[in-house]
Amino acid sequence: MVVRLEVSYDGTDFKGYQIQTSDPTVQGLIENAISKVYNQTIKTFTSGRTDTGVHAIMQVISFKTDKNIPEDGLKKALNSLLPPQIRVNKVKYENKSFHARFSAKSREYMYVIYNNDDVCPPFFYRYVWHVRGKIKIRKLKKTLKYLKGEHDFSSFSERTEKDNHVRKIISIKVKKKGKFIYIFIKGNAFLRRMVRVIIGTCVGIAKSNDFQPEFIKDILKAKNRGKNPFPTAPPNGLYLYKIEF
Amino acid sequence: MVVRLEVSYDGTDFKGYQIQTSDPTVQGLIENAISKVYNQTIKTFTSGRTDTGVHAIMQVISFKTDKNIPEDGLKKALNSLLPPQIRVNKVKYENKSFHARFSAKSREYMYVIYNNDDVCPPFFYRYVWHVRGKIKIRKLKKTLKYLKGEHDFSSFSERTEKDNHVRKIISIKVKKKGKFIYIFIKGNAFLRRMVRVIIGTCVGIAKSNDFQPEFIKDILKAKNRGKNPFPTAPPNGLYLYKIEF
Repeated sequence: MVVRLEVSYDGTDFKGYQIQTSDPTVQGLIENAISKVYNQTIKTFTSGRTDTGVHAIMQVISFKTDKNIPEDGLKKALNSLLPPQIRVNKVKYENKSFHARFSAKSREYMYVIYNNDDVCPPFFYRYVWHVRGKIKIRKLKKTLKYLKGEHDFSSFSERTEKDNHVRKIISIKVKKKGKFIYIFIKGNAFLRRMVRVIIGTCVGIAKSNDFQPEFIKDILKAKNRGKNPFPTAPPNGLYLYKIEF
Repeated sequence: MVVRLEVSYDGTDFKGYQIQTSDPTVQGLIENAISKVYNQTIKTFTSGRTDTGVHAIMQVISFKTDKNIPEDGLKKALNSLLPPQIRVNKVKYENKSFHARFSAKSREYMYVIYNNDDVCPPFFYRYVWHVRGKIKIRKLKKTLKYLKGEHDFSSFSERTEKDNHVRKIISIKVKKKGKFIYIFIKGNAFLRRMVRVIIGTCVGIAKSNDFQPEFIKDILKAKNRGKNPFPTAPPNGLYLYKIEF
């Protein structure tokens, strides 16, 4: 059998998702909890890795097992073993071909910006990017739109590997609510730090008087992060939001 | 001159408000920042001490100085020296009789409960008390009401000192919004842990089938924490909310 876990977490206190030797990671803590419940070492797969400080509203994890523990009991057991920063929201048995990474058809991320010239309330700083200076929403939307579709996203990645950098962005939505701006980006898959570089770049253009939205086409064409003059947005505002299979 | 600071903070990462020798405290960090700006050691006074994990929407701090730094410049300087968990929202010059503690006429606290039998989302756990089992709102309100007015609150305090335990509760409000319950308690002053013991006791009664709201009158009369069978509510849900002068 394959077990599918739907998990959410506050990434602030962890060294990212992927397991490491020393620092606490989301994967490390989840595999520890699963291995305790099943009384054997169990390896997991995931739909999307997240960096240090990045959160998940919906992360999907899968693993194989022979033992048939009832779904609700497994959920309760795992939550009792996990810290409150990580919660298992749903446990579901899938057929044996299911794989959290390879069966995933799309990943959607949400990025939250707090756009205000005054202070950022202390209860928000873990969960938003505090941006001073007015972000022009129409310009932000127009800039983001040029990234829709299939492109080589080398200019929007901190990855140094030489493999294929072509990814497909399926949809981009922008919502403003008071001082908060929510950006939803859905794609087939993403390069390392890709969402954060996209946000940093598009917010930089939308705030600037010197750059037009069309400048993003030049950045795309350059296929080189070094030719993109904008910073990577911080991890605090980023959430893995939805996985479709 | 006396400077008045209005400050908010997320108490999760600090060992309470009051300065200590080793662990980081809100007061320690604020006095450090002030002393750096003025280039001399400055002692501060505060309207209400908070325990480890307790937050503040509005905390008021006062200190004396001879130097006349413009309000906005002082606010920016302090915020640049403080961690993002502590924010100075307002700086105001007061006349020299102003004292954050002795001039305060009332303190209001807010307590936030997340009442849900399923998991508590990881983004909430620092900021709420997660209570399973339905809290009856009418019963909660009725129980709390008996505490209004002037009473000896010895049964609702973890303080062991022998001094006067009489305090006056000015108002109590309860609001329910979805799975959240907000309780506002305003008093002239509070004993150590008093709000948390009040919340723990009243929620205990409101959830129980064995105790009626009137049981709180017996607890009050006992003037002894040991005669109050209910636990102290955790610090996460507690916020210093408003100070009136």
